[in-house]
Amino acid sequence: MKLLAVGTVAYDAIETPFGKTDKILGGAATYIGLAASKLGTEVNIISVVGGDFQQKYLDLLENHKIGIQGIEKVEDGKTFFWSGIYHEDMNSRDTLVTELNVLESFNPVIPEDLKNSEVLMLGNLHPAVQLSVIEQMSEKPKLIVLDTMDFWMNSTLDLLLKVIAKVDVITINDSEARQLSGEFSLVKAAKKIQQLGPKFVVIKKGEHGALLFHKEQVFFAPAMPLEEILDPTGAGDSFAGGMTGYLAKSEDFAFENLKKAIIVGSALASYTVEKFGVERLVELTQQEFESRLESFKTLTSYDYNI
Amino acid sequence: MKLLAVGTVAYDAIETPFGKTDKILGGAATYIGLAASKLGTEVNIISVVGGDFQQKYLDLLENHKIGIQGIEKVEDGKTFFWSGIYHEDMNSRDTLVTELNVLESFNPVIPEDLKNSEVLMLGNLHPAVQLSVIEQMSEKPKLIVLDTMDFWMNSTLDLLLKVIAKVDVITINDSEARQLSGEFSLVKAAKKIQQLGPKFVVIKKGEHGALLFHKEQVFFAPAMPLEEILDPTGAGDSFAGGMTGYLAKSEDFAFENLKKAIIVGSALASYTVEKFGVERLVELTQQEFESRLESFKTLTSYDYNI
Repeated sequence: MKLLAVGTVAYDAIETPFGKTDKILGGAATYIGLAASKLGTEVNIISVVGGDFQQKYLDLLENHKIGIQGIEKVEDGKTFFWSGIYHEDMNSRDTLVTELNVLESFNPVIPEDLKNSEVLMLGNLHPAVQLSVIEQMSEKPKLIVLDTMDFWMNSTLDLLLKVIAKVDVITINDSEARQLSGEFSLVKAAKKIQQLGPKFVVIKKGEHGALLFHKEQVFFAPAMPLEEILDPTGAGDSFAGGMTGYLAKSEDFAFENLKKAIIVGSALASYTVEKFGVERLVELTQQEFESRLESFKTLTSYDYNI
Repeated sequence: MKLLAVGTVAYDAIETPFGKTDKILGGAATYIGLAASKLGTEVNIISVVGGDFQQKYLDLLENHKIGIQGIEKVEDGKTFFWSGIYHEDMNSRDTLVTELNVLESFNPVIPEDLKNSEVLMLGNLHPAVQLSVIEQMSEKPKLIVLDTMDFWMNSTLDLLLKVIAKVDVITINDSEARQLSGEFSLVKAAKKIQQLGPKFVVIKKGEHGALLFHKEQVFFAPAMPLEEILDPTGAGDSFAGGMTGYLAKSEDFAFENLKKAIIVGSALASYTVEKFGVERLVELTQQEFESRLESFKTLTSYDYNI
């Protein structure tokens, strides 16, 4: 199946306790696309960049067989730019700069031949943009996955709830799940969020892994304990890209297969954070990917005969 | 094998967002003993209480077939008392009262027929007391497990390091592992702590589960996502009691069996927090315990064919 990913393609400038970058390639759709491409999934990006966006980055995406015909280039505009600094625990960060630039007036246009994409991944963006994409699809996608954040809950909750009502899977972090549901217990939060529409609720807990809820069932995917995390940027998007890439490739949206999909997402995210920006994801080989899947298996498997 | 558990038997007064108790039965050795007893392990407690300690609580321990001959009763003294209040996230708490009372001059005396206990669980106590217990053993136990906390790192690190050098397994929480090792990465922290003596390092992350490190290997036991946590008191000790109770019963200290042991510990801890104090652990049935083990299996198992 074809995966369509909507989200930012951006410049990031990142500082962590381990280093600092100039403007480098970033953005939700970038990470989603690269992660999904590692699974051999046909993935296309809908996004917008400015005239300052370097051709080498578009080439990099194309070299990963990512469809970029849906990336609009506004020649007299500037690319979305985010700059942030991570604290020592890497779980919290301060935003230094957010320049929306071309994103401010982004009106996504889906090319005709992508309107029948079977899996739609809505990266974190204004809910109005996410809604517009859903409405442009010629057929209802077989699976719609939504990523969002507290910013939209605070600024445009009504519109966000409209989007949430239309999706099959929502990915959200733990504090956002609590905010959206008004429940402190994640089990209760996931139940309430399912009532808003999504059949599957994925709660991301960063270095503490991710929970997948569906009806009364729950699955937990750990995060891989790593010697070093250089830069957490893009971990959540790599997770989403790995997950949706796997689902599109395997064409199976049952709970059992979603479990596998979030393990795949966790594996790719665990590589992303090992270097700054997209570097580690770009250089990742099939063999390394499989070896990490094996590590995930080892991490939680035990003899059930207790 | 016989399990010998050293630790506090105490009164606790607890307040959480869900309620408040008067002085109730508490203490590390209490939870360790009760948890271990659920596995049918022969467990004996070394501790001290005051003349104010209610007979009904000693009866409760005996009814669970826990050996209490090693619990010294100081008739003119008062039982150790702790009072605390938990914040909404249940991960942090403020201590309101700590009255050491009879614990202040606690000089543990191990009854002769317990000096050959094969498994020794050193609950969180002054390292001098822990060391005294190790030295009183007539034969070196086949397995020594240590629980400790930052308080002893800050106040008597040298002595604590002497104890750490003598144990096989250390259980410690994530921030304490970071403090003890000077490493932020838990993978690096666990490596450094192994160099201090313990072959196995268990890092407890509360609601985020526990990591078991041994040489280059790592295993992760999740915490069970629960609808409601009423009182986290005793979770860590129930974990330690379940773990050592299982190890003593199964008489197998290999890495593969330690994995199972920390799943057992996690399962018992997940019950403890469902009610205040020891209530849930006391009423826990074998059938419920097995059902929770099944839930743990379901929580992380997936089809490895990805």
